[in-house]
Amino acid sequence: MEQHVQQWLKDKRTAHLDELKEFLSIPSISALSEHKPHIKEAADWLAKNLQSAGFDHVQVMPTNGNPVVYADWLHAPNKPTVLIYGHYDVQPVDPIGLWDTPPFEPDIRDNKIFARGASDDKGQTFMHIKALEAILHTTGTLPLNIKFCIEGEEEVGSPNLDRFVEVNQNLLAADVLVISDTPMLDKGRPAICTGLRGLCGLQIDVKGPKSDQHSGLFGGAVQNPIHALVRLLDSMRDEEGHILIDGFYDQVIPITEEERAAYQFLQMDEEKVRQELEVPALFGEKGFSMLERTWVRPTLEVNGIYGGFQGEGIKTVLPSEAHAKITCRLVPDQEPDQIVELLRKHIQKHTPPGVTVQVTPFDKGYPFMTPIDHPAIQAASRAYEKAYGVAAAFTRMGGSIPIVATFNRLLHLPVVLMGFGLPNENFHAPNEHFHLENFDLGLLTLCHYWFELANTPV
Amino acid sequence: MEQHVQQWLKDKRTAHLDELKEFLSIPSISALSEHKPHIKEAADWLAKNLQSAGFDHVQVMPTNGNPVVYADWLHAPNKPTVLIYGHYDVQPVDPIGLWDTPPFEPDIRDNKIFARGASDDKGQTFMHIKALEAILHTTGTLPLNIKFCIEGEEEVGSPNLDRFVEVNQNLLAADVLVISDTPMLDKGRPAICTGLRGLCGLQIDVKGPKSDQHSGLFGGAVQNPIHALVRLLDSMRDEEGHILIDGFYDQVIPITEEERAAYQFLQMDEEKVRQELEVPALFGEKGFSMLERTWVRPTLEVNGIYGGFQGEGIKTVLPSEAHAKITCRLVPDQEPDQIVELLRKHIQKHTPPGVTVQVTPFDKGYPFMTPIDHPAIQAASRAYEKAYGVAAAFTRMGGSIPIVATFNRLLHLPVVLMGFGLPNENFHAPNEHFHLENFDLGLLTLCHYWFELANTPV
Repeated sequence: MEQHVQQWLKDKRTAHLDELKEFLSIPSISALSEHKPHIKEAADWLAKNLQSAGFDHVQVMPTNGNPVVYADWLHAPNKPTVLIYGHYDVQPVDPIGLWDTPPFEPDIRDNKIFARGASDDKGQTFMHIKALEAILHTTGTLPLNIKFCIEGEEEVGSPNLDRFVEVNQNLLAADVLVISDTPMLDKGRPAICTGLRGLCGLQIDVKGPKSDQHSGLFGGAVQNPIHALVRLLDSMRDEEGHILIDGFYDQVIPITEEERAAYQFLQMDEEKVRQELEVPALFGEKGFSMLERTWVRPTLEVNGIYGGFQGEGIKTVLPSEAHAKITCRLVPDQEPDQIVELLRKHIQKHTPPGVTVQVTPFDKGYPFMTPIDHPAIQAASRAYEKAYGVAAAFTRMGGSIPIVATFNRLLHLPVVLMGFGLPNENFHAPNEHFHLENFDLGLLTLCHYWFELANTPV
Repeated sequence: MEQHVQQWLKDKRTAHLDELKEFLSIPSISALSEHKPHIKEAADWLAKNLQSAGFDHVQVMPTNGNPVVYADWLHAPNKPTVLIYGHYDVQPVDPIGLWDTPPFEPDIRDNKIFARGASDDKGQTFMHIKALEAILHTTGTLPLNIKFCIEGEEEVGSPNLDRFVEVNQNLLAADVLVISDTPMLDKGRPAICTGLRGLCGLQIDVKGPKSDQHSGLFGGAVQNPIHALVRLLDSMRDEEGHILIDGFYDQVIPITEEERAAYQFLQMDEEKVRQELEVPALFGEKGFSMLERTWVRPTLEVNGIYGGFQGEGIKTVLPSEAHAKITCRLVPDQEPDQIVELLRKHIQKHTPPGVTVQVTPFDKGYPFMTPIDHPAIQAASRAYEKAYGVAAAFTRMGGSIPIVATFNRLLHLPVVLMGFGLPNENFHAPNEHFHLENFDLGLLTLCHYWFELANTPV
């Protein structure tokens, strides 16, 4: 890679961080409808940024939900075309009281930038634009063809992206899909992710008496919807988190000895994780390591529960309703639709007497795996080694990027997941941040990657 | 009873309801500290009302919490002295969205007055003042001596009343305690309550990882505090609501065949209750009727639960915390302190691995029973029959008035529980109301009672 690309990144560092702060200041929360105007603002901001970076055909393209930002640079004939996917929407910020600085007032301290979306995924999407801008402005050209597809509904399960990709197959056609939304192993330990868990889930609404009742007058004679919900949820997992839904594990591909060895080689420090999370003990299915539990095993988690009195002090109420939100992380070859059906059946079978239960499924995502020996992945590995000085590990990941499967299915292209976030950067939680060491080395890695990939037959 | 007392009540009906509306408009919620000014406003309002009704020594007496309103009329030598207890504080109003009219804008429709506190207990406390005022203004005197003790912390467990009663034993000394805060059996079916359940409870705070985590990255490897809480709560009751806390039933006095027959005689229409509550089925311990389940059996209810994401849509979080509030209704001879200890032990023994649990007890109340053949109770029975034309049933009640035991213990006086609310008047729930038929007949009953009791040696 040419020396003045590096110099440019160095010279522009402060300006880049100022731009990023501007982007992170927009509260583009896709889960809450009151933030619709900020979604538009973030999409427009991105379009302007892509334009000024030198991309062509910049468009904010409508969908049935939030818009997709598209841009391209296609002036490298006979060279591969890369589709870069990212998302400009972010998670909600509650509990807001636990943030040290406001989530939408980006703050740099300890060489980290703190803001909702700093790591997931505004920061990493922004890096892609800046890396390519650096090459374009210093060399006057790019070594390969680039297309951007940046959506605004990833954090709510990308309900409209499948349709968008289907309709725009020609526009999005490429040789490789690159996504930076997966974590590194640790500081100084880059990783290329070769597998993602899928996702499905549902809201469970339990209804008891028509209105809240006095627990003294009716307690003991009327089913309490919270107790009913508690019993229902407790029936879904055993004490080690093994899932008790009939047929849940039927399609799970068992872990191979080779995978087990590969993950043991990573020497995950479980005690360090335990200390960082400040829990008395880690937890999970017997016979599996922490990496195996989060990478190759499916899960079922209650993400939220609520019912009855939540205020200060005591209210002796027998509530009318109780609610829970659950999601399952899925692994190959579990089918999200099939798992939702199994959940429904379980709930129906285990609904306690005296209440009615309603179930509303959330959007779904397929689990996914990509072969380690693909040339586009090997090229990424070389790029990491040049920037970080160490080989990237090959990993899988516990999270879900549902659209990966969509791109693979509709555009038939391999996926390279090269993310720069650290595992403890609080994505989806208060005090989300992004370490600027990986902002700097990540920009370098991406620049190296485009030159490596330009000379790789994919 | 003299004819012009009745006439007075008739003539003053509209004025009385206007006064009551004024009283009900004050949002004197004791559970929420932001309502402190309204607590004071309600106490002052009562004092003014007692003053203008003709009582002496009207005082708003400070406690370590909310003040107690005291007043008396002691000009009937050689006649019994009655202590009337009531409370001017009310329950919180959430979920506010389910009220048809605002909780603190009293509205009369279908001959019912709708407001928080209409029935529990502002409406009934107010009736006591108006009944005595009617006698005093039409006859120029009262047939017996009266003391009022109206507190402002009943809905939060009366944390300061024990001390208040202890310090003011002489001031409050009386021959009979009368309280109107228990329900009738049904429209036209008055009841004198001879037993109350006690109360104890606690808040359970489950703490997992130090902050909310991404359910994809840590799900399956870190205990989810909601699952831990769900398991803990589910361990406390079986599927019929029978409580699984070791030793919980040890002190429960078994129901006698006589009581069972007395309650069967009441011919409780369980199907009607089921329909009114709009539940698919009633519920409870096998071998007990609904009345037995709510009157003579102890219970354990989750009054509130919360943790993780409660907003619109989905948030794939593994939450840091989960919380529940539970209360037990106790029956003679369960000791509240002892039951709290049993709960603590159970929680300690059943805390799932990977989380820590903190327990905070709420205030407690003893269960209570009073003999049916006491002359003050028999006089009340005659008063009801004169006003309603039917004999009052003798019942017990599922709710708790913790201070009843306090009065009994410190002042050594029998308690007459003669309430005028209907069981479906939504105390503690949205759309609380009070039927005006019982406002009218209740005023008459109380007037009759004072004349009956004046001629009864107690």
